[in-house]
Amino acid sequence: MSATHHLRCIGCGAVIPGAEARSDFRCLDCNELYEVVYAWSENAPESARKQTAGLPNPQALRYVWAERKNSNAAADASGVWRFRDLLPILKDTKKPVTLQEGNTPLYELPRCAKVANVDRLLAKHQGMNPTGSFKDTGMTSAMSVAVDRGFEWVACASTGNTSASMAAYAARAGLRSVVFIPDGKIAWGKLSQSMDYGALTIQLKTDFDGCVNLLTELVKRFPIYLLNSVNPYRLEGQKTPAFEMLEQMDWQVPDQVVVPGGNLANSSALGKGFLELKHLGVINKVPKVSVIQAEGANPLYRWYVDENRVMAPMKAETRATAIRIGNPASWRKAASVVERTDGWCEQVSEQEIALAKAEIGAEGVGCEPASAVTFAGLKKLVRLGKVRSDELTVLLLTGHTLKDPQYTIDYHRGELLRPEETAQASAQEMAQHAALRKAPLVLEPRADVVLRLMEDLMKTEMPV
Amino acid sequence: MSATHHLRCIGCGAVIPGAEARSDFRCLDCNELYEVVYAWSENAPESARKQTAGLPNPQALRYVWAERKNSNAAADASGVWRFRDLLPILKDTKKPVTLQEGNTPLYELPRCAKVANVDRLLAKHQGMNPTGSFKDTGMTSAMSVAVDRGFEWVACASTGNTSASMAAYAARAGLRSVVFIPDGKIAWGKLSQSMDYGALTIQLKTDFDGCVNLLTELVKRFPIYLLNSVNPYRLEGQKTPAFEMLEQMDWQVPDQVVVPGGNLANSSALGKGFLELKHLGVINKVPKVSVIQAEGANPLYRWYVDENRVMAPMKAETRATAIRIGNPASWRKAASVVERTDGWCEQVSEQEIALAKAEIGAEGVGCEPASAVTFAGLKKLVRLGKVRSDELTVLLLTGHTLKDPQYTIDYHRGELLRPEETAQASAQEMAQHAALRKAPLVLEPRADVVLRLMEDLMKTEMPV
Repeated sequence: MSATHHLRCIGCGAVIPGAEARSDFRCLDCNELYEVVYAWSENAPESARKQTAGLPNPQALRYVWAERKNSNAAADASGVWRFRDLLPILKDTKKPVTLQEGNTPLYELPRCAKVANVDRLLAKHQGMNPTGSFKDTGMTSAMSVAVDRGFEWVACASTGNTSASMAAYAARAGLRSVVFIPDGKIAWGKLSQSMDYGALTIQLKTDFDGCVNLLTELVKRFPIYLLNSVNPYRLEGQKTPAFEMLEQMDWQVPDQVVVPGGNLANSSALGKGFLELKHLGVINKVPKVSVIQAEGANPLYRWYVDENRVMAPMKAETRATAIRIGNPASWRKAASVVERTDGWCEQVSEQEIALAKAEIGAEGVGCEPASAVTFAGLKKLVRLGKVRSDELTVLLLTGHTLKDPQYTIDYHRGELLRPEETAQASAQEMAQHAALRKAPLVLEPRADVVLRLMEDLMKTEMPV
Repeated sequence: MSATHHLRCIGCGAVIPGAEARSDFRCLDCNELYEVVYAWSENAPESARKQTAGLPNPQALRYVWAERKNSNAAADASGVWRFRDLLPILKDTKKPVTLQEGNTPLYELPRCAKVANVDRLLAKHQGMNPTGSFKDTGMTSAMSVAVDRGFEWVACASTGNTSASMAAYAARAGLRSVVFIPDGKIAWGKLSQSMDYGALTIQLKTDFDGCVNLLTELVKRFPIYLLNSVNPYRLEGQKTPAFEMLEQMDWQVPDQVVVPGGNLANSSALGKGFLELKHLGVINKVPKVSVIQAEGANPLYRWYVDENRVMAPMKAETRATAIRIGNPASWRKAASVVERTDGWCEQVSEQEIALAKAEIGAEGVGCEPASAVTFAGLKKLVRLGKVRSDELTVLLLTGHTLKDPQYTIDYHRGELLRPEETAQASAQEMAQHAALRKAPLVLEPRADVVLRLMEDLMKTEMPV
């Protein structure tokens, strides 16, 4: 399948050809983001529609996606490129840059379901991707485009999951990658992966905005491919967990999908995936997609509850670092998804995030704190009547627990939450915290001492 | 399929029924370990052989394993239980305790192949399991046995990958889990996962041997299921990566498989897997299985080169902490696998491990240092003529890079290797270290300054 796609500005609607070697991803006219549109897309541009005979056949898609599970070809072993029929962004989609991303587990969370008062709850764990976060699904698509268009350099401004993922895929592709970060105190833990995968890190004597500005200037002067979240091809890969989730549910569409809200590319991409499947007739309804933000990094929530609908960038602060973003690039796309799917937007406190993470952990499923906002948010949505008990809900977990071990340690040592944060907790929440906290005990090395403790513990209920 | 298996002592050959609720896994007669044997096993005990009509059919096995890839049932979605026909250890193998483990990537390492001077090199990455290490494949099988036999408590003595994995699977099963560690300075980073998954950690005022001794006493007095590596059911799950690897290679058997050697359960299990497939006629030859140890934790290597073949426990020291084991429980099983498959045993230095890890990382594949001994060892095996250039080799990577970010940070900051360690490196190795190290640079935030640096870098070859 050839690369028959266009980029369309989500602001003014201007359409440009997709197959060019470009690295500036903001509309020259109105500075908004682009989205990838195909010949078969809803409201496809006139020029694109001419290229196709009609919509891809829904039965054929499901069949071929299932068939590929028994192939060991690189593009088939990838949980992103297995769905390449809806990703015609490369000259040859059978030769992507891949680390066998996707194919992530869909977990039942029976005890969390009980806590949230819903009949059944599932979690799609995108933290089980190769570099430990959902970014890999988007990086495989965008990095493949970088190679397809002939770039030798790729870059981003990030110290977190994005730089880790970019570095890994650049290494796989044999491209040179550079990570720009503000000068100052380095969070080494966050850089370990990009160093391991061989990226060059450059500390610039400026702040984060200064890094982004320099990067914007660089891509105009040098053939360097920009992999920040403005890159619309990242969203194409990131839409595939929607396909995979549905396939794992035997194409039963969940009622609700709950996603963390940081830069908001994730909700944008998943929504695009669901809406495309609906448009193509693969499913006959879309789930409600709701976005949950941390109280200290809640620009979309503020926009959502603001009567005048003004998006005001803010200084973000939360220990869920993966969503500590005050000026989210993809907010318009996410807002459109929430609106079109009839979803909701909520915010949750630091205390609620910490408790939700421990409750998910106690199911044997580890995640980074940003992922846990989904479960904290679900509890709130149920209380508000936005999610009914009989509605099937899928939480999108975005990062592995190993992405932030310090958070876990601080929680269990009782050093995470400040008194003013726990003061907001209900008695029931405090009891859950107490049952879930697992700071080590020190005992004499005698069997009777240990046995007495174990017998005492058996008088208590299992947490959750 | 019912649980038709026995436990056979690898020392005296005594056979006991497998389906009992036992938690003491050393032979009462000779104190050696047990192995799981089936009615269809090579040299199956007479009593077991009567239970079966014959060997499982090789074509039928391959067919059913492939078919299950298109099922969303929990046992089919697991990369371990998909092969349950060769794991009849439960009353009902369709209801295992699973986190959808296995299904791990098999990566091509083209640049590492060039460095090691082999035509083609693959890596089976068991660090892509749910808790980030190969232990999950063994934990799903042993934890399922714990549930099957009615235990409510599980325990191990470990601060590393084993405790993380045990805690996760115990949580999934709804069992109570306890991790015993020696009192003293706690390595919190290593405990973060088991706390997150809700295990109780007990620090005993004794050393590691004291913890193991207490645990041995406990299981005799209280129904607590022992999940240390003496548990033979862990090896049953750990043998399945051998099946999965071959399936991913369209049943082409590699010539060589290289495995890290710590507690030596991994090489024991993989070897068991390959030998079972050969016995059943699924494959017609087995790969040579070689075990690589760190110089500072090399008891099997010492045994291997010792004319008198004496196994002498030692005080282990290496920064590849996952294999820092001086008294490996499964050494007899591993030695038997090396011998029966015509493999080899080697040791590698700290400097060689660090370089190998960086070289694997530069392919976009992150691993913990213990995994990298395989590649360091392969280079040595090629130099020694034990592996030919035209032989297809698979490295077994055992842990994710996120398991030990501090190692990566120390390496790239130049703080990992002591002068006496780098003094052993060749000029070529030192050049590789220099090319691979990626300590951050500090620059002025000006496009011309950054561009000059990038242009300079383009004059250098890509590392590896």
